[in-house]
Amino acid sequence: MEGEPRFRAGPEFDLIAELAGRIREAGGAPPGRARIGLGDDAAVTVPGGATATSVDMLVEGIHFRRETALPRSVGRKALAAALSDLSAMGAAAGEAYLALGVPPRVDRQACLELYEGVAELSRETGISLLGGDVSAAPVLIVAVTVVGHADSPDDLVGRAGARPGQVLAVTGELGGAAAGLMLLERPELDRSLDSSLAAGLRRRQLEPPVRLAAGTALAAAGVAAMIDVSDGLGADAGQIAAASGVATRIELDGLPLQEGVAEVAQAAGVDGFDLAAGGGEDYELLVALEPDLVTEAVAAAGGAETALTVIGEVAEGSGVELRGPDGAVRPASGFQHLAER
Amino acid sequence: MEGEPRFRAGPEFDLIAELAGRIREAGGAPPGRARIGLGDDAAVTVPGGATATSVDMLVEGIHFRRETALPRSVGRKALAAALSDLSAMGAAAGEAYLALGVPPRVDRQACLELYEGVAELSRETGISLLGGDVSAAPVLIVAVTVVGHADSPDDLVGRAGARPGQVLAVTGELGGAAAGLMLLERPELDRSLDSSLAAGLRRRQLEPPVRLAAGTALAAAGVAAMIDVSDGLGADAGQIAAASGVATRIELDGLPLQEGVAEVAQAAGVDGFDLAAGGGEDYELLVALEPDLVTEAVAAAGGAETALTVIGEVAEGSGVELRGPDGAVRPASGFQHLAER
Repeated sequence: MEGEPRFRAGPEFDLIAELAGRIREAGGAPPGRARIGLGDDAAVTVPGGATATSVDMLVEGIHFRRETALPRSVGRKALAAALSDLSAMGAAAGEAYLALGVPPRVDRQACLELYEGVAELSRETGISLLGGDVSAAPVLIVAVTVVGHADSPDDLVGRAGARPGQVLAVTGELGGAAAGLMLLERPELDRSLDSSLAAGLRRRQLEPPVRLAAGTALAAAGVAAMIDVSDGLGADAGQIAAASGVATRIELDGLPLQEGVAEVAQAAGVDGFDLAAGGGEDYELLVALEPDLVTEAVAAAGGAETALTVIGEVAEGSGVELRGPDGAVRPASGFQHLAER
Repeated sequence: MEGEPRFRAGPEFDLIAELAGRIREAGGAPPGRARIGLGDDAAVTVPGGATATSVDMLVEGIHFRRETALPRSVGRKALAAALSDLSAMGAAAGEAYLALGVPPRVDRQACLELYEGVAELSRETGISLLGGDVSAAPVLIVAVTVVGHADSPDDLVGRAGARPGQVLAVTGELGGAAAGLMLLERPELDRSLDSSLAAGLRRRQLEPPVRLAAGTALAAAGVAAMIDVSDGLGADAGQIAAASGVATRIELDGLPLQEGVAEVAQAAGVDGFDLAAGGGEDYELLVALEPDLVTEAVAAAGGAETALTVIGEVAEGSGVELRGPDGAVRPASGFQHLAER
């Protein structure tokens, strides 16, 4: 680090120019709400009546390791993680901005692959990639800022609207990201697993799904509170409970486990429901809604090509309760198994 | 790095909660255009007819060194550098989002001091600090995303509007940031300098000015192109030239040097005009405008408490010419002296 020049405009400028070139190739004129994209001091957009904005930073060695994550996956995951926060507001796809820290050993080709991962998911989700910043750094850093749009702030769904008597429901499937991480870190665990199942779990960790369409559909269906499952279902249900001033109760045996999660858990000597409730990074959506809205919400999620499963309820009180099949209440702590390895 | 847990939600959550507490203390309800601030999946704002968005990342060891920059200054500079891009569009103050990478040796107190530097400049400039992300990292990383507003995209000024026959003008004073950096890196250079002048130069490097008010005033006065002087006047004039398809010519002896720059340059055996034209990080605004608008633009800048000095002209052709007092043309390369040390 000490030997790095403090003014190294040259290489950064070249990379920015190269990335700018890629953006132009990909999109032609700045699409969507953009009026000026990359190449000026700032991007200019024409927003809707309300915007939702979120920032997510991935750091090599903390959120991913280069031994197990290809640059393209890192790019995809950085954007997916940021978009998950917009999904959880019910915002429509808008713009993304990329701040990249590049260590000396990451070459131009790897940078461009990472960028291509971001660009690829941008195209798939209708996000306009409008610019950012590139700097030297001691490890790979990917900070993504995303902006989503709605006609009015009232169309966006926060965490504070859950009320006693409502039910909790979750999109898609849980536990796959945690099981995938275990397979990446301990390859010996996949011995007894079908290879396509194992690949699906690893992909779930490396390239999470984006629930933007489900988020806007669920918001339109009138869900009362919404959050993305990034820190673990228990922790995220606790966030809704705290913001709404209610208690949340989740039935563990009602959780929609991704196929293969139970097998990986068994091989590792842990409980599959613990992976689903505590593992995090599934990037599904957890919602609270009135019971008479469930049918409509399930149809809305289905229209966005994902399931919606009722997994619990909202009650008077505070905190989160995870109830096992035996009726026993388990602690809702985060997924400590890996943290303590 | 390898020993860091990959799921270390605990400490990050505490710091986010502490920062959230600070924001609430500072501002009460989310101010300005914000409807939901920190504490939900995303911040919700009600934007104007157009937004300008920019991202700027500072990395320890590349953009600052902890031996010479206090955390509070790092926070201020990160926000100031990002706001400089909004200033250069003529956008009005909006919102800021902070992504922080914190190494183990940076303690909570230092984090909060850095945050306080950001919050302090937010208050001074009317920016709403609405959230962000905090992660572990091997060195201190500060990525700031800023959003500014305008009634219409037409009110914002890009780099591409310069035309032959226009003049070039710059706000404030140049060379101070480069001279300040030399004083920070080579303290022996300030021996012959008045101590308050030296302190002013160091401050100029550590805590650059914010020209938001000047930017909106100059945009309203009708300047044709605008850019912030971040990479060095020559390089930035080159950006206007490239984007506008014109040549830019700058008279070096017309540059407004900050007091003390000439003395530091002399002590270091370099030319003060080189520091002013190549040093970068002055975060002044460079504009191209019709000659008959100069009086009005000078008054507009004056209303925003900064000078505006005519320093050159726009001509047919391409590239940038820096002309010395002797009429000789100098190369417009970036400030390589420090990079090559």
